[in-house]
Amino acid sequence: MADIQARTEDALGQLLPPSSTHPDLLHEAMRYAVLGGGKRVRALLVHGAGEIAGATANELDRAAAAVELIHAYSLVHDDMPCMDDDALRRGKPTVHVEYDEATALLTGDALQTMAFEVLCGAEDACAETLPAERRIAMIRLLAQASGSRGMAGGQAIDLASVGLAISLEELEFMHIRKTGALIRASVLLGAQCGNCSADTLERLDRYGKLVGLLFQVVDDILDANSDTATLGKTAGKDADNNKPTYVSLLGLGEARKLADSLLDETEAALVPLGHAATRLRELAVFIVHRRF
Amino acid sequence: MADIQARTEDALGQLLPPSSTHPDLLHEAMRYAVLGGGKRVRALLVHGAGEIAGATANELDRAAAAVELIHAYSLVHDDMPCMDDDALRRGKPTVHVEYDEATALLTGDALQTMAFEVLCGAEDACAETLPAERRIAMIRLLAQASGSRGMAGGQAIDLASVGLAISLEELEFMHIRKTGALIRASVLLGAQCGNCSADTLERLDRYGKLVGLLFQVVDDILDANSDTATLGKTAGKDADNNKPTYVSLLGLGEARKLADSLLDETEAALVPLGHAATRLRELAVFIVHRRF
Repeated sequence: MADIQARTEDALGQLLPPSSTHPDLLHEAMRYAVLGGGKRVRALLVHGAGEIAGATANELDRAAAAVELIHAYSLVHDDMPCMDDDALRRGKPTVHVEYDEATALLTGDALQTMAFEVLCGAEDACAETLPAERRIAMIRLLAQASGSRGMAGGQAIDLASVGLAISLEELEFMHIRKTGALIRASVLLGAQCGNCSADTLERLDRYGKLVGLLFQVVDDILDANSDTATLGKTAGKDADNNKPTYVSLLGLGEARKLADSLLDETEAALVPLGHAATRLRELAVFIVHRRF
Repeated sequence: MADIQARTEDALGQLLPPSSTHPDLLHEAMRYAVLGGGKRVRALLVHGAGEIAGATANELDRAAAAVELIHAYSLVHDDMPCMDDDALRRGKPTVHVEYDEATALLTGDALQTMAFEVLCGAEDACAETLPAERRIAMIRLLAQASGSRGMAGGQAIDLASVGLAISLEELEFMHIRKTGALIRASVLLGAQCGNCSADTLERLDRYGKLVGLLFQVVDDILDANSDTATLGKTAGKDADNNKPTYVSLLGLGEARKLADSLLDETEAALVPLGHAATRLRELAVFIVHRRF
């Protein structure tokens, strides 16, 4: 995992324009938002699925960078005063605090654009890289996962549900979009970098959906149950903001049981893939046992 | 022109999710931001260049929709309080005024995502549509024109230059990115929808650069010289905000002369294309003589 996290950091550092490129401040803020932090869960999922599909590490680096750029853009915008209004992210001041709101807005915008540019591949790409049809499928997948019927839509539902008594089904509907869509897309993008059978793809898709939900349940448990220093972002925020969460709907004990049972389901989805899925198995365990 | 404007409106109306799709409010705000207004200059440029390249109207509709979605997203974000803080756009309340800031942020985000999804083509595309390599080239072109080295970068330079005495060269550097890049991309995307010789492409590229600059010079003249009712957005804002413009740097008379000379240059660039470039010629004239 540490190896892939380091590769991803390297790839992002290479792909992002240097801070010396005009406009300097924007490029500095983009690097600030993306580099030097984060668990890179999405990048790990890209690589984990990609290994099963026999993808090359170079192709996976690019897909991993693209999902991490989308994730970073969403964090920058979500932290802004008109959204979650948060001052701390990955243990550092958020972008609008370190710079200003206008810069945060443009930073998020430019990071999103860059994710799609990265998926187009290198301009001087040699013939051995992915066929263009595959790239189009990947760009479409990432766009659908991020847009109004994916991540941005989930965020809109989240904002609209503050202070409301929503059902567990509605909470799940929201999270499948807000967090789940991009996590699932990470798994599928990794698979698309190589080749795998329809059955394997279906299993990976199922794993991706489950792990996306698992990630959010654990996120809610951590928010309710950690201190800000460990989390690297403001703890207890969901309760303070009167946001419905798995913990507020189920209680802490039941939320933990749900996480355990989702973890079992991810294992079950991967069984027929055997040893090749070891990394994805470890990742699901990592997601459950993480501390931040 | 009216025909293409109507086609573009239709295409956008079809491509945007209906307001009845969950999350309703976000989809309603996306439609509010995009439909029912605007001169569709960028769509007209896509079609104008596409006709020269022998592109089909259906392909051009998709490319035109993509650039109009990027343009609409940039307007929604630029109007927000942390940026230009404007309450009026195309004669209607801006998105953050009609809805709220969080919705405006997410609306812009989702419109940008959608632009790239649209360029991927229809999922059930038949074989007669553009090859995937061409689509990748178009997505890369749009991303480069919109990102930190294009539109978003120009916007960052614009914000940083408020109240500063900048040179004409610096003003041009900013505008080539802020407005010029997407206008130039519109012309090139139209050309990419069909086929044209390297020489024609080079002439279209030159025309696109010139018309981008022309558009901005005229924008500055209109801002200094119109009333809010005619403009459909707040007039005199540049001077109020102490923003450097072609009018503030050159004076109104010289700015008008610059527009005239740029118009002559666009004509010169198109001469060898003969009758096929009539629409692009008319468009340049339209851009100079528009009232809003």
